[in-house]
Amino acid sequence: MPSYTAPLRDITFVAQELLGLSRHYQQLTGCEAPDAATFAAIVEEGAKFAEQQLAPLNAVGDQHGCQWQDGKVTTPPGFADAYKRFADNGWLGLDKNPAFGGQGLPPSLGFVNYEMVCSVNHAWGMYGNLAGGAISTLSEHADEALQQRLLPPMIAGRWGGTMCLTEAHCGSDLGLLRTSAKPQADGTYQVSGSKMFISAGEHDMTENIIHLVLARIEGAPAGVKGISLFAVPKIQVDAQGQLGAPNGVSCGSIEHKMGIHGNATCVLNFDSATGYLLGEANRGLNAMFTYINESRLAVSQQAQAHAEASFQGALAYARDRVQMRATPRLRSDQPADPIIGHADVRRMLLTQKAYAEGGRMLAYTCAKGVDQLHHGASAGVREAAARRLALLTPIAKGFLTETGNEAAQLGIQVFGGHGYIREWGMEQIARDVRITAIYEGTNTIQGLDLLTRKVLADGGEALGELLGEIEDFTQSTSAPTHLAQALLKQVIAWREVSAWLSDASAGDANLIGASAYDYLMLSGYTLLGYLWLRAACVAERALAAGSDEAAFYQGKRETARFYLQRLLPRANLHETLIRTGSNNLMDISEAAFAR
Amino acid sequence: MPSYTAPLRDITFVAQELLGLSRHYQQLTGCEAPDAATFAAIVEEGAKFAEQQLAPLNAVGDQHGCQWQDGKVTTPPGFADAYKRFADNGWLGLDKNPAFGGQGLPPSLGFVNYEMVCSVNHAWGMYGNLAGGAISTLSEHADEALQQRLLPPMIAGRWGGTMCLTEAHCGSDLGLLRTSAKPQADGTYQVSGSKMFISAGEHDMTENIIHLVLARIEGAPAGVKGISLFAVPKIQVDAQGQLGAPNGVSCGSIEHKMGIHGNATCVLNFDSATGYLLGEANRGLNAMFTYINESRLAVSQQAQAHAEASFQGALAYARDRVQMRATPRLRSDQPADPIIGHADVRRMLLTQKAYAEGGRMLAYTCAKGVDQLHHGASAGVREAAARRLALLTPIAKGFLTETGNEAAQLGIQVFGGHGYIREWGMEQIARDVRITAIYEGTNTIQGLDLLTRKVLADGGEALGELLGEIEDFTQSTSAPTHLAQALLKQVIAWREVSAWLSDASAGDANLIGASAYDYLMLSGYTLLGYLWLRAACVAERALAAGSDEAAFYQGKRETARFYLQRLLPRANLHETLIRTGSNNLMDISEAAFAR
Repeated sequence: MPSYTAPLRDITFVAQELLGLSRHYQQLTGCEAPDAATFAAIVEEGAKFAEQQLAPLNAVGDQHGCQWQDGKVTTPPGFADAYKRFADNGWLGLDKNPAFGGQGLPPSLGFVNYEMVCSVNHAWGMYGNLAGGAISTLSEHADEALQQRLLPPMIAGRWGGTMCLTEAHCGSDLGLLRTSAKPQADGTYQVSGSKMFISAGEHDMTENIIHLVLARIEGAPAGVKGISLFAVPKIQVDAQGQLGAPNGVSCGSIEHKMGIHGNATCVLNFDSATGYLLGEANRGLNAMFTYINESRLAVSQQAQAHAEASFQGALAYARDRVQMRATPRLRSDQPADPIIGHADVRRMLLTQKAYAEGGRMLAYTCAKGVDQLHHGASAGVREAAARRLALLTPIAKGFLTETGNEAAQLGIQVFGGHGYIREWGMEQIARDVRITAIYEGTNTIQGLDLLTRKVLADGGEALGELLGEIEDFTQSTSAPTHLAQALLKQVIAWREVSAWLSDASAGDANLIGASAYDYLMLSGYTLLGYLWLRAACVAERALAAGSDEAAFYQGKRETARFYLQRLLPRANLHETLIRTGSNNLMDISEAAFAR
Repeated sequence: MPSYTAPLRDITFVAQELLGLSRHYQQLTGCEAPDAATFAAIVEEGAKFAEQQLAPLNAVGDQHGCQWQDGKVTTPPGFADAYKRFADNGWLGLDKNPAFGGQGLPPSLGFVNYEMVCSVNHAWGMYGNLAGGAISTLSEHADEALQQRLLPPMIAGRWGGTMCLTEAHCGSDLGLLRTSAKPQADGTYQVSGSKMFISAGEHDMTENIIHLVLARIEGAPAGVKGISLFAVPKIQVDAQGQLGAPNGVSCGSIEHKMGIHGNATCVLNFDSATGYLLGEANRGLNAMFTYINESRLAVSQQAQAHAEASFQGALAYARDRVQMRATPRLRSDQPADPIIGHADVRRMLLTQKAYAEGGRMLAYTCAKGVDQLHHGASAGVREAAARRLALLTPIAKGFLTETGNEAAQLGIQVFGGHGYIREWGMEQIARDVRITAIYEGTNTIQGLDLLTRKVLADGGEALGELLGEIEDFTQSTSAPTHLAQALLKQVIAWREVSAWLSDASAGDANLIGASAYDYLMLSGYTLLGYLWLRAACVAERALAAGSDEAAFYQGKRETARFYLQRLLPRANLHETLIRTGSNNLMDISEAAFAR
C-alpha cells in the first residue's frame, strides 16, 4: 500500500499563506477563532488519526466490504471501533454547536480534516460525513425540541445519519419520486416507500440512524413542488430522546460496487415509519439543499483527497523505481535512473501535483465561504458568501471530481504494471474515486446547475464579480507576465462565451445542455489557473525574501508554471467545443445511434 | 450484464464498404481469398461463438478469478471447456499455416474475430491470443524441426504459449534483464531466472505451455544487445513431439489485479529449464518483436472491443432509462423522456460510438497491412506494408487504449449510479480495459517509439507518405468542405510540428520525452479524423444513391461530423502542449516535487 503522510506543509501554505485563515477567523462571529498555532495543532492531531488509525483500515475495508444478512449490515473489521474513537476525540463535533455537544470551531477546520480522512479511507469517512450533513440539516430546519432530541447523540457519534433521495426510477429527476407521507393526528407523518443508493444507510457503527427522507405528503402537487423533507429514525426516539421500538425502516439489500466497498450502499424500505417534517411542507427540496450543497463540497474533497493520495504513491514510486537513463543522469552509481528523471513521468506527476494542491486551494476557498455563510459578522458578508459559494459549488464538485479521476488514473500509469496490482493500492484509489463524478448529482447535473442556476439565472452577476476579481489580479500581480497574460486571455474567453451562451440559448433549447459539461470544465480550468497564479505570487515573494524552504517554493512556482502552460490550455479547447453548438449532438436521430 | 450483439453491420461497413477486404484478398498470395459472402459467413459464426459461448463466462471469470495452489492454476469455471470448443472449431488456427493444421485464411479475419472475443471476454481471449503470438514467432524464427514438434499441438489448442519479458527490476528497460541461458552440448540451453507479469503463464486449459523467454547467454554483452530468445516448454517435448518430464518451470504465484481476473498473471521461475534458441544469439529482442508488434495490435483491439461493449451497454440504457424532459419530447405518454434525448448524454454516447467504430476502422486498416506484410504478392507490397504498419502500430496501441479507457469511463457515466454497480457490467469493462494502456509497452513507450523510431529515424519519410495520402484525400473528397478543411488544417499541423520537433530536439535532449505522449495523441486524433472523413464519404454516397438503410448511413455521417467538430480539436490542444517545450517539465528539481 502507498504510505500516506498528511501534507501538513501544504495545508499551512494554502490555509495561512494563501488564504490567511487565522486572520479570517477573527472576523467571524459565533465560533472559535483558532490562531495559526492552534490551527496547526488541531490539524496535526487529525493527521495522526488519519495516518495511524484510518489508513490501516483502507485495504481491509476494500477486501472485506460490508456484509448484509437478514437486514443487518456488518461493516469491515475495525470500522466501528475507529468511528467510536473518532467521535470520542471530538472530530465529529468539530464545527458543531456547543449547545449540543459540539466544539464550535469554524467549519473550514472540518474541511481540512476531512481531506486527510478521505485520502486514507474514503469509505469510512462517508459514515461521519453523512451524519454531519444530517446534523447540519437538522440544525437549520428542525424545531428546537426535535434538535434537543436528535442532535446530542448524533454529534456524540452514538447515532448516524443519511440522506434518502434516490428511488429506483428517479435519480437526477427527483420530481418523479413516489415515497409518500401520511399526516398523523399527533403532527408526525407515516412515511412509506423504497429508497436506493443510500450510503451508510444501515450499519453496525451506531445505535441509531436518523434518515432524512424526501417524500410526498398525500395530496401534494406532482413534481418537485410537492416534495417534503422528513427525519425518520431507524429506531423510534421518545420525547426524552430515549430509544424505543424499531420504526418500520428495513435494509432490503446492499450493492456490490466498483469501489468504496467499506461503505454500505443500501436499499431502504420505509413501511409506515414515523417521520418528522423538517421545514415547510412541499419545500423539502429547498430544505434538503442544505445537505446537498454540503455533500457536494464533501464529494469534491473526496476526489481531491484521492488526487493527493495517488500523487504521494506515484511520487514515492517514481523516486524509487530505476528504469533507463535520464538527462541529466540522476544516479550514476546505478544501472539506470529513477523514472522521476523522465519527462513524461514528470508530466504525469506534475498533473497530479497541480490537481492535488490546486484542488486544495479551491476546497479551502469554498471552506472559507462556508465559514462566512454560517458565521459572517454581517448580513452583507453572509449574502456575498452565499452568492459566491453557489457559483463555486458545482465547479468544485464537477471539476475536482473529473480531475481527481484523472489524477488517480495517472497514479496507476506511473506505476506501470504494478499500478494494476491490488497490493500497491493505486487501483483502489481509482475505483474509490470513480463514484465522485456520479453521486450527489452527476457532473452533467453539475454543469447544468452551474450554467442555468448559477450563471444565467442572475444575468451573470455572481460570475461577473468573480471574473472581475481575477482580471484585477492578473493586472496587479507580481507573477511572470506571460503566465498572467495566459490567464487573462482565458478569463476574457470565459466572460465572452458566457455572454454568447446567454444570447444564443434563447433560440436553441439544447444549447445549454450541449455546452454544460464543457462550460463546467472551462470554468474549472480557469478558476484553478487563478488560484495557481496566486500561489505563484506567494512563492515568488517567499523566494525573493530568501526563504530557507527554497525547494518547497520552487515546487510551487514550477507547478504553477506547469499548470498555466500545460493544463490551462484545455480551457481553450472547451471553449472551442462549446462554440460548435448543439446541432452536432442533436441532429442524429435516435434510430441512427444503433446499427 | 449488458447484452452484447456482434456489430455485424458495422463490420461489413468497415471491412467491405470502406476497406474492400474481399477485393484486397484477391491480391494476396499464400492464403485463402474469401469472397464477401464467405467472409460474412465466417464472421457470423464467430459472432455466435462470442455471444453464446464466451459472453456468459465474462462475469463468472471476473468473480471467480484464477486460483493458485502449490504452483497449479485453476481458471474460472467454463474457461477450459470454451477454449477446447474454440480450438476444435478452428478459431485458433484461422490464419495459421495449413501445413501445421491451420486454416490458411488471411490474418485480417483473425482481427475481425478477435474484437468480438474481447468485447465479451477479454481475460479469456488472452489465452488464445498469447498462444497465437507464440505460434507466429515460432513460425518466423524456429527451425523447421522445432516447428514440426511444437506448432501442430499449439495450433490445435492442446498447448498454449506465452511471452516472458518482464522481470521484477525491468519492465520498460529490458536491457537490465538477468535471466540467463547456459549452452549445452546438445545445442540446447539451460534457462534460469525469474519472470513476472506473465499473462496466461500457468493454467489448466492446455496440456503444455510453450514459453518464449528473453534471456542472456552466459558471456553475452550487457544491455539489449546481449539478449536472446528461447522457446522453453513447461513440459519437455521429445524429438517426436511427445510430452516427457516437467522442465524446471514453476509458477510462484499469481497477481491480484484490478481487472482481467480470469487471466492468470504469473510469476514464473525457470530453474535450468531446457530452452531452444530462436533466431540468432543476441538478436532476441529483434525476434521477439514479431510477437511484440502482433501483441500491440491485439491490445489496441482489446481496448477498441471494450469501447464497443461499453457503447452497446450505454446505448441500451440511454434508450430505456427515462429521466426529465428532452427537447423535442420523445415519449409524451411517459412522465419523462429517455435520456438519449438529452444533449450531454448524446455527447457521451457519440464519443463512445466515434471511438468504437473509428477504432474498428483503424484496427482493420492495420489488419489489412498485416495481410500484406505476410502475403503481399511482391517485395514492394510487403515492404510498403511493413513501413506503414511500423508507423501505425504505436498509434493504434497508444491512441486506441487511451480512447478505449475514456469510452469505458463514459459508459459508467451514462449509467449514473448504476454504472458503479457490478451487476450492470459497465465497471468491469472499465477495470478490464485499464491494463491496455499499460501492458505491451506503456503508452509513454508507445509515444517514444512513434516519435523516435517511426517518425524521426527515417527523416519523416513513412509519415510523409501517410500525410500526403490524407492531404490528397481532403482535396478530392466529396465530404462536406468544412469538415475536410478542419482535417487538412490538422494534417498540416501534424507535419509542421513533426518538423519542428526534428529541429528543436537536436538542442534539447528532453524535448522528445516531453512531447511523446502529446505527439501520440495528436497523431491518433488526426488519423482517426481521416478515417471518419472517409467513412462520411462512403455514407454520403450511399445516401445519395437512395440506400434503404438511411438510419445506418445517417448515423455514420453524423458521427463523422461529431468526431471532426468535437474530438478532432483535441489534436490542436496536443500541438499547443508540444510547443510549450520541455522546460516546464524539467526545471523543477526532484526535491521540489515533495513537500
